[in-house]
Amino acid sequence: MNYKMMGRFIGKILMVEAVFMVPAMAISLFEGEFESVWAFLWTLVVIVLAVGLLMWLCRGPKNKFYAKEGLACVGISWIAMSLLGCLPFYLSGVIPDFVDAFFEIVSGFTTTGASILPGVEGLPKGILYWRSFSHWLGGMGVLVFLLAVSSMGGSDNGYTMHLLRAESPGPNVGKLVPKMKKTAGILYFIYILLTVLDVVFLLLGEMSLFEAVCTAFGTVGTGGFGIRNDSMASYSPYIQNVCTVFMLLCGVNFTCFYLLLIRQFKSVFRDEELRLYLGVVAGSILLITLNLKGFYDTFGETLRHAAFQVATIMTTTGFATTDYELWPGFSKAILLCLMIIGASAGSTGGGFKCGRVLLVLKSLRRSVQRIVHPQKVQVVRVNGQTIEEKVLQNTNAYLAAYAILIVLSFILISVDGHSITTNLSAVLACFNNIGPGFEMVGPTCNFAVYGTFSKLVLILDMLAGRLEIFPILILFSRTTWAHR
Amino acid sequence: MNYKMMGRFIGKILMVEAVFMVPAMAISLFEGEFESVWAFLWTLVVIVLAVGLLMWLCRGPKNKFYAKEGLACVGISWIAMSLLGCLPFYLSGVIPDFVDAFFEIVSGFTTTGASILPGVEGLPKGILYWRSFSHWLGGMGVLVFLLAVSSMGGSDNGYTMHLLRAESPGPNVGKLVPKMKKTAGILYFIYILLTVLDVVFLLLGEMSLFEAVCTAFGTVGTGGFGIRNDSMASYSPYIQNVCTVFMLLCGVNFTCFYLLLIRQFKSVFRDEELRLYLGVVAGSILLITLNLKGFYDTFGETLRHAAFQVATIMTTTGFATTDYELWPGFSKAILLCLMIIGASAGSTGGGFKCGRVLLVLKSLRRSVQRIVHPQKVQVVRVNGQTIEEKVLQNTNAYLAAYAILIVLSFILISVDGHSITTNLSAVLACFNNIGPGFEMVGPTCNFAVYGTFSKLVLILDMLAGRLEIFPILILFSRTTWAHR
Repeated sequence: MNYKMMGRFIGKILMVEAVFMVPAMAISLFEGEFESVWAFLWTLVVIVLAVGLLMWLCRGPKNKFYAKEGLACVGISWIAMSLLGCLPFYLSGVIPDFVDAFFEIVSGFTTTGASILPGVEGLPKGILYWRSFSHWLGGMGVLVFLLAVSSMGGSDNGYTMHLLRAESPGPNVGKLVPKMKKTAGILYFIYILLTVLDVVFLLLGEMSLFEAVCTAFGTVGTGGFGIRNDSMASYSPYIQNVCTVFMLLCGVNFTCFYLLLIRQFKSVFRDEELRLYLGVVAGSILLITLNLKGFYDTFGETLRHAAFQVATIMTTTGFATTDYELWPGFSKAILLCLMIIGASAGSTGGGFKCGRVLLVLKSLRRSVQRIVHPQKVQVVRVNGQTIEEKVLQNTNAYLAAYAILIVLSFILISVDGHSITTNLSAVLACFNNIGPGFEMVGPTCNFAVYGTFSKLVLILDMLAGRLEIFPILILFSRTTWAHR
Repeated sequence: MNYKMMGRFIGKILMVEAVFMVPAMAISLFEGEFESVWAFLWTLVVIVLAVGLLMWLCRGPKNKFYAKEGLACVGISWIAMSLLGCLPFYLSGVIPDFVDAFFEIVSGFTTTGASILPGVEGLPKGILYWRSFSHWLGGMGVLVFLLAVSSMGGSDNGYTMHLLRAESPGPNVGKLVPKMKKTAGILYFIYILLTVLDVVFLLLGEMSLFEAVCTAFGTVGTGGFGIRNDSMASYSPYIQNVCTVFMLLCGVNFTCFYLLLIRQFKSVFRDEELRLYLGVVAGSILLITLNLKGFYDTFGETLRHAAFQVATIMTTTGFATTDYELWPGFSKAILLCLMIIGASAGSTGGGFKCGRVLLVLKSLRRSVQRIVHPQKVQVVRVNGQTIEEKVLQNTNAYLAAYAILIVLSFILISVDGHSITTNLSAVLACFNNIGPGFEMVGPTCNFAVYGTFSKLVLILDMLAGRLEIFPILILFSRTTWAHR
């Protein structure tokens, strides 16, 4: 392992985190929340010291950096970012337990939105801003932020390509333009554009600027931390609909937006992942609306709640406008399945990803066809392009890892004795970076019901889900740390 | 498709079914249950007519028979067997609804043991015998009975080999001895030996012969239909322990017994699947016993119930000595996971199978190692032998099919509006051929809570699970029925 390069990489990530913490501190200062100001200040001191130490320890010439270092680096830097990022919560006394604070910030950075706080109204504004901003940072971070940073780190393109490949099984984001840094720029441009548009539409709905910005962070990052105790239930139908639209937009593969920008409308229209994504969304809204007949007063209200909840779960955001825990079984079953499918590859959302579902379905169809015509050579195509066997193998390995980790986590958090539905949906909600689950972790509840051990398991689940498993899994493999 | 050969194959299966129905009719006659005698008699008439018609329609010279015909044949013959096999239930009036009767017999043949009957005490003895016997026929049927029959059908060995390969990802049963028919004979010998031993041990526990035989059918076939309303709860601890031991024995790969018979003790001792199976069983019993501390009066009682329930779920039998629905969450979570893992490949049990779990785990470990050492050639080994890439691909395809069908079935049966745990465990219990699930389909409940549509979905699940998915999946593929 190239520990020195890794140390410098992690140091740079932490520096960026420190810079982004300053606006939150400024808000606290402006609002006169001095406890929080001190908390941010101390955190910054700790970060600066940590970065300084890392840089001093890891000084030396630049040299080679392989895929395993890259993946391990991403895993470690997310953990480091979270360990330091939770300090404002902890030091300000807002969350007195360190593991709880860690859970909350991991939930933020991974855009999960699962909270251990029973209520958020009345919390210091600087803290609320930092909590919501963590979604925005994390939502794009995985795709681009680290990429942009790593190209600064002097490492070769091979590693970033590898990361991107691990990230997206669908159309490869790395292929947008040949230069990594330019790709990062394009994606950030789209991301910022969506955020600004969201803020503008929310302001038109008579939201305050602070609320609009925080809500947009949670929406565009597909996170789900709200700044009201009832999530989005008390907002106007207009604002709820704006959120629905922006959540759905952010669940789309960002490559599609890039293609729209360069006017390749046909490619977007024909994109199979996009079709699957929109098809599942439309189908789910339709079925739930039919199933909810008579549950709300008007058809419009039913449709609004159905669309909002489908969007929030499918894009793995995790806001709520209504307590879907009270919905009939069929609607809940659909939501549970949407939890697993998740958003599109190359979006800010989590989950198993539509692109992978497509590949798994297509490779299953091929398996059946192979039985029927064993002699015929069969290839899997997506958007007219032949998919390499290696990509199919990776997708299957991902499915296996996904299934095994979910079952394992489910058993581990069951020690707390909650019901099967609570535990299963808690794992799914964390692993797929959604936020709320069912029953005791439903939309009106929170994750404080779990003990410290279970929270640590769920923290690992959130990280593994967000980083597409392997950067976290690799940290637990003996071969990673073995000397050659 | 070679419809004539397929017709003759199915005809032969049905003839064998008719022959095996005669003892059940004799019992009804002996007990003076004339309604049942008439029901059996009419069924036999229908079968004979159906067989005669099939044989007449499908007469002609023998010719080639490919893998797809083989698989489709197995799927169709199981459906045909069940459609006719449920007639005694229906015609005798014991189960007045045809879909219910069909559900019950599919549950029997697939060794699931899920019932729609609220109680079984007081049913005609001939009917009870037929119900339990269906487990025995189905338990071995998949592995050997069809194999033995098909070798009569004049088809080439390639097809049976293909079936066996589809069936067992672990040590291949087809490799016991070169001749298929002899292999079938050996497996039947082991199966009958286990059944006889079980009956003898049950008789020593002062069970009546009828009860002992029916219980042994349910145990050795890993089925789970009992002849008392409380399953095994009212039997003596001795009888419960005998069942535990025999269930566990029948969850072992039968190849291991063959190796014991030919004194290759070392191979058995070193078998990785056997070690995993026994390890999971032992670990689960230990954890549940610890978790149940104070739940029962004595340690012995706790251990007995823990061992019984672990054995019954892991081997996918489905008897019960206690209402595990009342157990704490951790114990229930373990049982839910055992439902998925299932018994060993090449045993009479169902589930995903330990052999496949082993392959999935090993191929996942390889994926991680590939990231760390991309240049190194890595192979997956089981019992010291290199596993072909094709086998790994098939296992991954199986996992994908398994996951997709479970999610799909879960959504479909949710239309009835039951809870998430009820629906999920119902699908798992049927697909993995276990029987009872949790909540409304728990050990003290039955599947009558579901509507006709859901029952049909669960019937397909039971068949797909028992026949290892592809023989059923292939029936739904357009390419199977397309003319070349």
